[in-house]
Amino acid sequence: MVDLALPTADTVTDAVLAAARAARDAQPTLARLHRAEKDALLLAMAEALVARDAEIVAANALDLAAADEAGMAAGLRDRLALDPERITTIAQQLRDAAALPDPIGEVVRGSVLANGLELRQVRVPMGVIGMVYEARPNVTVDAAGLSLKAGSAVVLRGGSAALHSNTALIGVLRDVLVERGLPADLVVGIDEHGRDGVDVLMRARGLVDVLIPRGGAGLIRRVVENSLVPVIETGTGTTHVFVDASADLDQAEPIVLNAKTQRVGVCNALETLLVHRDIAEEALPRLAGPLAEAGVRLHADERAAALLGAAGTSAEVVPATEEDWDLEYLALELAVRVVDNLDEALAHIRAHSSGHTESILTRDLESQRRFLDEVDSAVVMANASTRFSDGGEFGFGAEIGISTQKLHARGPMGLPEITSTKWLVVGQGHVRP
Amino acid sequence: MVDLALPTADTVTDAVLAAARAARDAQPTLARLHRAEKDALLLAMAEALVARDAEIVAANALDLAAADEAGMAAGLRDRLALDPERITTIAQQLRDAAALPDPIGEVVRGSVLANGLELRQVRVPMGVIGMVYEARPNVTVDAAGLSLKAGSAVVLRGGSAALHSNTALIGVLRDVLVERGLPADLVVGIDEHGRDGVDVLMRARGLVDVLIPRGGAGLIRRVVENSLVPVIETGTGTTHVFVDASADLDQAEPIVLNAKTQRVGVCNALETLLVHRDIAEEALPRLAGPLAEAGVRLHADERAAALLGAAGTSAEVVPATEEDWDLEYLALELAVRVVDNLDEALAHIRAHSSGHTESILTRDLESQRRFLDEVDSAVVMANASTRFSDGGEFGFGAEIGISTQKLHARGPMGLPEITSTKWLVVGQGHVRP
Repeated sequence: MVDLALPTADTVTDAVLAAARAARDAQPTLARLHRAEKDALLLAMAEALVARDAEIVAANALDLAAADEAGMAAGLRDRLALDPERITTIAQQLRDAAALPDPIGEVVRGSVLANGLELRQVRVPMGVIGMVYEARPNVTVDAAGLSLKAGSAVVLRGGSAALHSNTALIGVLRDVLVERGLPADLVVGIDEHGRDGVDVLMRARGLVDVLIPRGGAGLIRRVVENSLVPVIETGTGTTHVFVDASADLDQAEPIVLNAKTQRVGVCNALETLLVHRDIAEEALPRLAGPLAEAGVRLHADERAAALLGAAGTSAEVVPATEEDWDLEYLALELAVRVVDNLDEALAHIRAHSSGHTESILTRDLESQRRFLDEVDSAVVMANASTRFSDGGEFGFGAEIGISTQKLHARGPMGLPEITSTKWLVVGQGHVRP
Repeated sequence: MVDLALPTADTVTDAVLAAARAARDAQPTLARLHRAEKDALLLAMAEALVARDAEIVAANALDLAAADEAGMAAGLRDRLALDPERITTIAQQLRDAAALPDPIGEVVRGSVLANGLELRQVRVPMGVIGMVYEARPNVTVDAAGLSLKAGSAVVLRGGSAALHSNTALIGVLRDVLVERGLPADLVVGIDEHGRDGVDVLMRARGLVDVLIPRGGAGLIRRVVENSLVPVIETGTGTTHVFVDASADLDQAEPIVLNAKTQRVGVCNALETLLVHRDIAEEALPRLAGPLAEAGVRLHADERAAALLGAAGTSAEVVPATEEDWDLEYLALELAVRVVDNLDEALAHIRAHSSGHTESILTRDLESQRRFLDEVDSAVVMANASTRFSDGGEFGFGAEIGISTQKLHARGPMGLPEITSTKWLVVGQGHVRP
């Protein structure tokens, strides 16, 4: 059982830095394992999680009891809850990670220089990866599995509400490491140190190589604005679809519906619909029909509201405010605006997009070319639902998150995106003239 | 002429943020230029610098007068000084940048997914690059040229001692931009805001996409420890050479001499020599001879000092302190240690390296394999001088710096390392099932 007495700030600093240092010291052992050994480790972890599910469910019950006492919202409680079936699913994530190709050792570039020096850029582990996320125990195992497969030790900080569950899960993973003669500290949890622990982790430059926040906008902003450890910013998506004047409405109707409603609480779901004025009178009522049936409320600008009203739409329409253009609703709400032309659509996206995913629906070659060229987002689409902006859909086999920053990784991140590279140079007595 | 009255902190904040925002707003115009237009711009800039060299030399004279009054060291004064010949050399840097392949538009990966979606990852400009460096006017032009070629606007902060020179150089570059119908704010200088300006720039997350410090360890540490804008850490090199038991001393002698003395004030110069005990008795006196002739002083551990003493070396030998193992001398000084075996050499490097460049000298396959595998530095070599760790030597044609971090870029950085990527997804009405 974890000691829940609140530690002092200094104790937290010492403990979190010690945890990060332990992970750092353990990592070279992992880096020397070949793929077969790493895969066997992940499969053994999967087996142990299933074998010890009763213990994990018991720990989870403590978190659930505390959640009920605190009056946790139903949706959050559901993400927290574990049962044997969910533990089997979590174990499967480890088996899936084992099945992925090993990114480590890949020769990214290579040549022989004019002087005969052999040059190779090879993919190597990042080192120590810090993961900060919310009270979702499945992320604990998923993040550990992907980090280990990519050759990195991992420092895990889930939400405090999942403290007992995460401690139990991490305990199982560490036991398997020890059974296989590997350092337990390849997987360390710092949940017991609360939010203070995250503050220390964000300053552990030199011990932690990268920090990846996974979760809501508030969590991500807090890490991005305070971390001295390099961060990969993930997630927030104020996603746009632009219906061009030449759009095929038979295609646009299902795409807009799919982008908005196929799954609403995710970062690649549609949040703002822009419609070219030349097609708006026909397009808006047609698009609004299925959206209304799906229960979507429209936050429309004046022109859009007027056209929808004139057409006697069945959709619930409320006036859009300036704030609506920057919102990630993650709900059955959609901002709608009529624009004069492609330039106005591009300007709107430039002003309001979080740089995640945008899509144009068009039959015009020049409109598609300009949209793909000029929109500066991680994923830019034409004639497809924004829901395809996803590591699984891209064929990565796993997704650590979707990066909305320009450094290191941009867009859906698979295993290679949580690795680094180094240069190998082999000579035969070479000196520089 | 620049107003040298010290601005208040708030004025500085407003001015630097306005400069960064202006660069950000200007950048899309640059992003739309094709290679031929960018190259023509750089060639016109080169021509203008040469045509207006008198004006630049006059501005430089003001900086030199201030430097003389302040008693600036001769080496620093020399890096600051400009004359028509040096301006021609600086202009040549722009011509060299024009001659480099354009990284923008490169298709990094691409495929057609099972559902027919066309997927391409393409190289795109970073956006706005912030460069913070010391009083070297040539860096002003070099950084601007490489950033523009890579499609990015640039915010330049050189040392205050070069204020007039940088203002003149940036003025010429901006004039050429305007003459060619491009926004002047693609190149902005913030030198007049002093160190406070750097503090604001380091917090301009969302306006500046990456900050690249170029210069001494103090400058780099200050940026790395304080910046909320993503940073690419460059430069510091506590570079090691390990002479293995099986080393060919006929090769080791010139390599060690070359690594230490071919150019001493640079990050890829040798700083610590590790020698296997089984070869130390023969190797140390042989290696020390030419080093002594070149004026190198040895900071030796006890065993190395004893062996050198017994051999009656002509080298100046002083006892190594614990601090010596972490120093980047950038001078004719070399730390020397005898180690028991490869493991001890690896442990020493792990404890003391800045992760820049290390080299093993060996004839043993297993020693080379383990060294290349296990040393976790940006560049790991065998049987070659560390002086080859360089973008020019690697064939990049230009070097922005040598990254010692693991995120985004590691090792020598060419033009592609100051770009980002985005994903293009083209469908024909695709929705996600």
